[in-house]
Amino acid sequence: MFDKQVYVSRRKALLEKMAAQGEKGILFFLGNVEAPAQYKDNCYKWRQESCWLYYFGIDDPRYAAILDIESGRETVYADDVSIDDIIWMGPQPSVLSKAEGVGVANAAPYVKAFEDVAAAKAAGRKVHFLPPSRYYNTMTLEKLFPGEKPSEAFVETVISQRIVKEPCEIEAIDDACALGYEMHSLGRDCIKEGVLEQDIVGKMEGLTLSKGWGVSFPTILTQHGETLHNHLHDKLIEPGKLMVIDAGAESNMHYASDFTRTYPTSGKFTTKQREIYQIVCDCNNFAFSITRPGITYRDVHIQTARKMLEGLRDLDLVRGDLDEMILEGIPGLFQPHGLGHNMGLDVHDMEDLGENLVGYDRGQKRSKLPGLGSLRMARELREGFVITDEPGIYFIPALIEKWKKEGLGEGFVNFAKLESYYDFGGIRLEDDVLVLADGARRCGPKRLPITPAEVEEAMAAAKS
Amino acid sequence: MFDKQVYVSRRKALLEKMAAQGEKGILFFLGNVEAPAQYKDNCYKWRQESCWLYYFGIDDPRYAAILDIESGRETVYADDVSIDDIIWMGPQPSVLSKAEGVGVANAAPYVKAFEDVAAAKAAGRKVHFLPPSRYYNTMTLEKLFPGEKPSEAFVETVISQRIVKEPCEIEAIDDACALGYEMHSLGRDCIKEGVLEQDIVGKMEGLTLSKGWGVSFPTILTQHGETLHNHLHDKLIEPGKLMVIDAGAESNMHYASDFTRTYPTSGKFTTKQREIYQIVCDCNNFAFSITRPGITYRDVHIQTARKMLEGLRDLDLVRGDLDEMILEGIPGLFQPHGLGHNMGLDVHDMEDLGENLVGYDRGQKRSKLPGLGSLRMARELREGFVITDEPGIYFIPALIEKWKKEGLGEGFVNFAKLESYYDFGGIRLEDDVLVLADGARRCGPKRLPITPAEVEEAMAAAKS
Repeated sequence: MFDKQVYVSRRKALLEKMAAQGEKGILFFLGNVEAPAQYKDNCYKWRQESCWLYYFGIDDPRYAAILDIESGRETVYADDVSIDDIIWMGPQPSVLSKAEGVGVANAAPYVKAFEDVAAAKAAGRKVHFLPPSRYYNTMTLEKLFPGEKPSEAFVETVISQRIVKEPCEIEAIDDACALGYEMHSLGRDCIKEGVLEQDIVGKMEGLTLSKGWGVSFPTILTQHGETLHNHLHDKLIEPGKLMVIDAGAESNMHYASDFTRTYPTSGKFTTKQREIYQIVCDCNNFAFSITRPGITYRDVHIQTARKMLEGLRDLDLVRGDLDEMILEGIPGLFQPHGLGHNMGLDVHDMEDLGENLVGYDRGQKRSKLPGLGSLRMARELREGFVITDEPGIYFIPALIEKWKKEGLGEGFVNFAKLESYYDFGGIRLEDDVLVLADGARRCGPKRLPITPAEVEEAMAAAKS
Repeated sequence: MFDKQVYVSRRKALLEKMAAQGEKGILFFLGNVEAPAQYKDNCYKWRQESCWLYYFGIDDPRYAAILDIESGRETVYADDVSIDDIIWMGPQPSVLSKAEGVGVANAAPYVKAFEDVAAAKAAGRKVHFLPPSRYYNTMTLEKLFPGEKPSEAFVETVISQRIVKEPCEIEAIDDACALGYEMHSLGRDCIKEGVLEQDIVGKMEGLTLSKGWGVSFPTILTQHGETLHNHLHDKLIEPGKLMVIDAGAESNMHYASDFTRTYPTSGKFTTKQREIYQIVCDCNNFAFSITRPGITYRDVHIQTARKMLEGLRDLDLVRGDLDEMILEGIPGLFQPHGLGHNMGLDVHDMEDLGENLVGYDRGQKRSKLPGLGSLRMARELREGFVITDEPGIYFIPALIEKWKKEGLGEGFVNFAKLESYYDFGGIRLEDDVLVLADGARRCGPKRLPITPAEVEEAMAAAKS
């Protein structure tokens, strides 16, 4: 947990911002409860709700809170432990002492939160709440606020706070990235012909559990990188393939890291692999080089896509004018996803609050073009933003065939040559980036090997 | 997945059993959907619903099925993948081919399941459904069957099938136990002064992910064994403590193992530790020795508790007549939990179907005594049952103080002597046991070291 003052300041700023917009009433916060995997008493690893963590820090299930915009009164709601709880869970500090630990003066039983919400509504006061991120909270909020929608002002104010990372958060993200670096290094060192993918995944995830909270998202580790979110790990490593590892660690402070590297399973890239790899590597570096306050990440995406097309044109995989190709959505055939997303307490930071509200400025519209339309983060960059930089090139036979059949990309895409790439797979290279006053820096103490030479050297070192 | 015929036979037997009870209508099955950890696109590791796995085996989210008791018609409901799905998830076999893979002849889109349920209800047919194990399915069923309760006949018939393990399941459980054995051995070998508990947990869980589906429940690894379900792992290993490790692996076939061992952190038991340890070890062996078809596990629990009291009386921690102490609930002061539970696809097998329905025969009532009242599995044992054998002795200061204050155990419990055990912690020793025609055997290829000598030897071997 951060210093008490961190939480006090965040809540104070939130209340002030809400009041400054003329908002009245109370802000209702609902933490997570445990999530059953198979039955009520066998739950997935505990994970607190991120907005709750941000404003209240208390890392226990079944908490709620109310902040009164008008009076400034702050109350945390949870139940003190009974003797039965002590047998199963050990002695626990009181709810009030936990509340005081984050600067909240008042505590009350959990059920009182719902009574206080009802009382506020009955008194004609506005009750602001956030969208739920899990099904239990969905059920709870549907019962508490039937037919009502989350408060836009509340959502947007929270986003405006959380999107700019504080120094203590940047430190926490650097820590998560240090663990992510270690996790990826271990994974890379395990790549060897005949090894089961699952074996490597377990080692990587075990490390994140030993030194952190676990993975920040389910690990992608696949020799079929053209399948973007492939969570199967049932293949033995074959020679001559490309292995995409997209994985991240969550630190004990609950901040995420998220890196992707792509490795030649044999330790050396073939010429064909290296050609495509180099384009992706150049795109990653290029995107980073133009990342700075004032530019929109939509622009960074588009300029990077242009760079990618240039490389593909050099290989005669596409033909024609770069700008025309951008307008035609050609990049989306090769990279169906966006360049990146916000990162923080969530690996796609605040995505539960609304992908567009988090990733798009007011007035910015989501494109309908392939690829660009999938961009999660399009906003004008500001100092303190933390985002991912993750270009990729994939050869997805089903998608290419669909384009061909529907006449998409005609005159631009060299479908004949593409056929020889049907068994290529995919490449993605991802770093986490902090926007600085005058540019950007990569998060974490060290950058994972990324140039073909660095990658081959690291893989050779693991074998020796 | 097991052979197709396994699923065909299970469903056939289910329909026949339902029909034999005079039940009519249709059986509705609802598989799991993904469980969001932070937001819709960041989910916990996928885990299918166990009843679904048992009857249909298909290990993918968002499936439902209907079995018609009267016509015998079987239909699996799920959506075939779109081109977008292929980009993100890769090419997938059709729902129909997956259904046929487990011997189901009919497939239809997911939403059709709900239409077919509505049509059956409109036609006045009975729709049997099971209790949900997760919140999403709770929501779905509440909407589909407002105010209705799960079908008791369906629940009890499923329990009667799943509680007797088939040969292929026993093999799968033995496999899960082999992995649990490896997991525990690794954990034991890591116990060393100054090591962070979380470091060991990560290594153990990593192994289960490398070689299986992960843990079968959140790992308990603690130097405060007196806290029964302690999921904190934030302590450094101190000398002279007792370390309880209660952990299990889920195999790739989704069967569970569940073992507990207790280790002296210094590698050698003190005399005081050894005295208590030996009682628990004797109880574990004693319970196993009387486990056989025909005896109730309630009796095994009680006879084992009697044995425990005998040991405690030898140490002058309790005094008086053993049978009187049983009737007074004295064992519950030292072992507030039951002797064991069913184990199978779930570590507490079928607990989502109702703890009492699974663990108690018709006519068997749950006791109100401490300890015995917490017994999950009380039934008369039958060949093919798989259960855990997990006696424990804990010294829980808050509980002892409560008894003392309330005059409980007066004349039986030597509260004065107990005070010197307030910093003792707790000991639990757990094996997984298969009931055979003429007795029982422990599951898995090898038994984890359990006698004080075996434990000390194994710990010495790890150090050398």
